[in-house]
Amino acid sequence: MAQALAEVLAFFEEWKPTLADMLASMEKRFTDQTVWENVGISRTVGFAEAKAFMDGFAQMKPIESGEVIVHHAAQVGNVVLTERTDNFHDKDGQCIVSIKLMGVFEMDGTKIISWRDYFDTAKGF
Amino acid sequence: MAQALAEVLAFFEEWKPTLADMLASMEKRFTDQTVWENVGISRTVGFAEAKAFMDGFAQMKPIESGEVIVHHAAQVGNVVLTERTDNFHDKDGQCIVSIKLMGVFEMDGTKIISWRDYFDTAKGF
Repeated sequence: MAQALAEVLAFFEEWKPTLADMLASMEKRFTDQTVWENVGISRTVGFAEAKAFMDGFAQMKPIESGEVIVHHAAQVGNVVLTERTDNFHDKDGQCIVSIKLMGVFEMDGTKIISWRDYFDTAKGF
Repeated sequence: MAQALAEVLAFFEEWKPTLADMLASMEKRFTDQTVWENVGISRTVGFAEAKAFMDGFAQMKPIESGEVIVHHAAQVGNVVLTERTDNFHDKDGQCIVSIKLMGVFEMDGTKIISWRDYFDTAKGF
């Protein structure tokens, strides 16, 4: 029962140290059907769409690495709920995007079935 | 350990059937120090500020009742994480505000220490 939580926490660790690592982890854990939503901003299905979204994000902001600070995380069945701060750094290690948010992950073993992040979209990045 | 989750689910039930019931439940469960945030929109401390916020909301939208649909809820320690749809109805029972969101509650027995809801603020109400 604790596997889903462990997999989500491992996923966050895999985002480091470079953006390429984050994308590789997403490719490993997404299936062609994985639905990833930044609620109000984006909804992608599968890794290719997710990568295109991340590429657009990286064009808008010169992010080189992602870091997750987990404030709270809890599991119910195969669903993991989190409150986090996601920080993104540039090549000099400076934090250029910091988003406090909550996100929910529906897991199937090591794979992500769906992932929805909720945050203050009006604030922008 | 399951008390926090049970108290949060009971809190949602207490919102019905009228706005007065919701406010009475908030008054019962808030202390003078309860911090309630709609992240990016509002931050209140204690019941009086929370009621002032709700009164402002009710002036903006003629809400008469609140209803919570819980999609997922999980507990870790005294912290409860939720994904929900909060619906608010007018006096004719028509749904006039519907917000899909995630929220986190830090509980102390029946009391709410802190409550933060995250949602697509750019969408508006």
